Amino acid sequence: MKAYEEREIKRVFLVACGGSSALMYPSKYLLDHEAETITAEVYSSNEFIHRNPKTLNEQALVILCSHKGKTPETTEAAKFAKSKGALTVALMYVESDFTVNYSWAPAGTKEQYSEIMNYAVLYRLSLGLLYVKEGNKKYEKLLNSLNNLGTSFEKAKVEYEEVAREYAKSVKEEEVIYTMASGANFGVAYTWIHSHAIHAGEFFHGPFEIVDKNVPFILLKGLDETRPLEERAETFLPQYTDKVHVLDAAKLDLSDLDEEMRGYLAPMVLNYILRLHAVALAEERNHPLETRRYMFKVPY
Amino acid sequence: MKAYEEREIKRVFLVACGGSSALMYPSKYLLDHEAETITAEVYSSNEFIHRNPKTLNEQALVILCSHKGKTPETTEAAKFAKSKGALTVALMYVESDFTVNYSWAPAGTKEQYSEIMNYAVLYRLSLGLLYVKEGNKKYEKLLNSLNNLGTSFEKAKVEYEEVAREYAKSVKEEEVIYTMASGANFGVAYTWIHSHAIHAGEFFHGPFEIVDKNVPFILLKGLDETRPLEERAETFLPQYTDKVHVLDAAKLDLSDLDEEMRGYLAPMVLNYILRLHAVALAEERNHPLETRRYMFKVPY
Repeated sequence: MKAYEEREIKRVFLVACGGSSALMYPSKYLLDHEAETITAEVYSSNEFIHRNPKTLNEQALVILCSHKGKTPETTEAAKFAKSKGALTVALMYVESDFTVNYSWAPAGTKEQYSEIMNYAVLYRLSLGLLYVKEGNKKYEKLLNSLNNLGTSFEKAKVEYEEVAREYAKSVKEEEVIYTMASGANFGVAYTWIHSHAIHAGEFFHGPFEIVDKNVPFILLKGLDETRPLEERAETFLPQYTDKVHVLDAAKLDLSDLDEEMRGYLAPMVLNYILRLHAVALAEERNHPLETRRYMFKVPY
Repeated sequence: MKAYEEREIKRVFLVACGGSSALMYPSKYLLDHEAETITAEVYSSNEFIHRNPKTLNEQALVILCSHKGKTPETTEAAKFAKSKGALTVALMYVESDFTVNYSWAPAGTKEQYSEIMNYAVLYRLSLGLLYVKEGNKKYEKLLNSLNNLGTSFEKAKVEYEEVAREYAKSVKEEEVIYTMASGANFGVAYTWIHSHAIHAGEFFHGPFEIVDKNVPFILLKGLDETRPLEERAETFLPQYTDKVHVLDAAKLDLSDLDEEMRGYLAPMVLNYILRLHAVALAEERNHPLETRRYMFKVPY
């Protein structure tokens, strides 16, 4: 917070790769929706370095995230941002002005959530900035709600553990399962490893041509202002495919979260439920989530 | 230009859907790379409306594009932006402060290019803004190069017409052909209708796990600062798949274009070549490019 007070900040760059990049989308949504003067952008680390945005200077805040700090591109991006005079904050083990540790635990375990999990830290950094710079009063509501997130996760688990197992059985032979979402939830769709994420709005301008009776979709429905886009996809899909699985945050008990914060926090709960599905599918296929052909195995 | 002079502009929103949205990416790249104070963002029309960015106000310029003006979401987005006091410019038939017509012609025809084609108009609007607001001197170079673009397209056609036909024959049975690019060229990859575009940088953080001996890729290599990302993909791919087709702007005769402009204009030439491939593939499959299952055919 002190670092925020000490300098003018006009621009936020959210920089990471792959799954860590997907974590950044809700924070971008929050900043887009709440910030009066500060603009935010998500970049893949290497693109960020080479694109070399001209607004990357001492008035920029660069937030980086690299799971276990194992992503060389993100470490490079942190150095690059520092060399341009930007204020840098890194989630875990990346060289920067500030390093924040976050908790991480295997999917579906009780420890997978807490106010220091990665999404939560990113939100605190983003809304904290608006609290300091623009007097945004929602920061306190966010902190309170993050404290209660664990309870919401537990309730969601009770609701969805069996659903996930049943679903995994029904789709274990599928090669591809598309995911869809919009707004703050799009990043969650992007983390699904069995396919490609389709933006629920863009869907109707090209991608929907892939829909066929046997093409499976998981549709995420969040609680932010873009929910009508997800609802529109929900109306269309069942007319042309028999394989639609909807995960709807409105059907969850989120009463422990401040009402005004639910739109922003829904992606975290949806992510939790989607991970339950991924774990169930991995078990059903006897193919652990961590199995990789190339990552960390061959030079690239 | 006069409208630019009359008001302060801090933020550019590039708003469209599907293929028209893909046209916006090069302009975003240019603005990121050149603009000292103005920030730019690409949004799908419906997401833009519902996300309702707080920086959308009278200091915002909203550039919209809808091919033949047939996209209701984009028409809505124009109205929405106007209601927020933004300066709006629409490419073709959308209600806004200014409407610019652009030329369009079937792929591969001589008429498919000119300084009033869609990409060109978007560049002129973007760099024109920086010329007025920040005294960016490259605007004149851009105008000269756009005048010569037709010649570059003609030369590319001579070079690639036969290549495209041969390629189409070799992949006509493929269900999916992935496209890859980075920087200013990513939008071009996105327009490829037979598959999903993969960002050449993000590729190494998840998507590369889909690579297999029989999975076909078209890799676009542009001339902007992110070329090293595309080169890295070019090194990796042939080790694990036999089906890599590279379209490299560096191998084209672009001598009619200002050297400093070639990175920005490469996507336009790559788009032209990629369209030659799409047309050849459509002929080979006897399946016209315009065939749709749902678009403009069913309610959605």
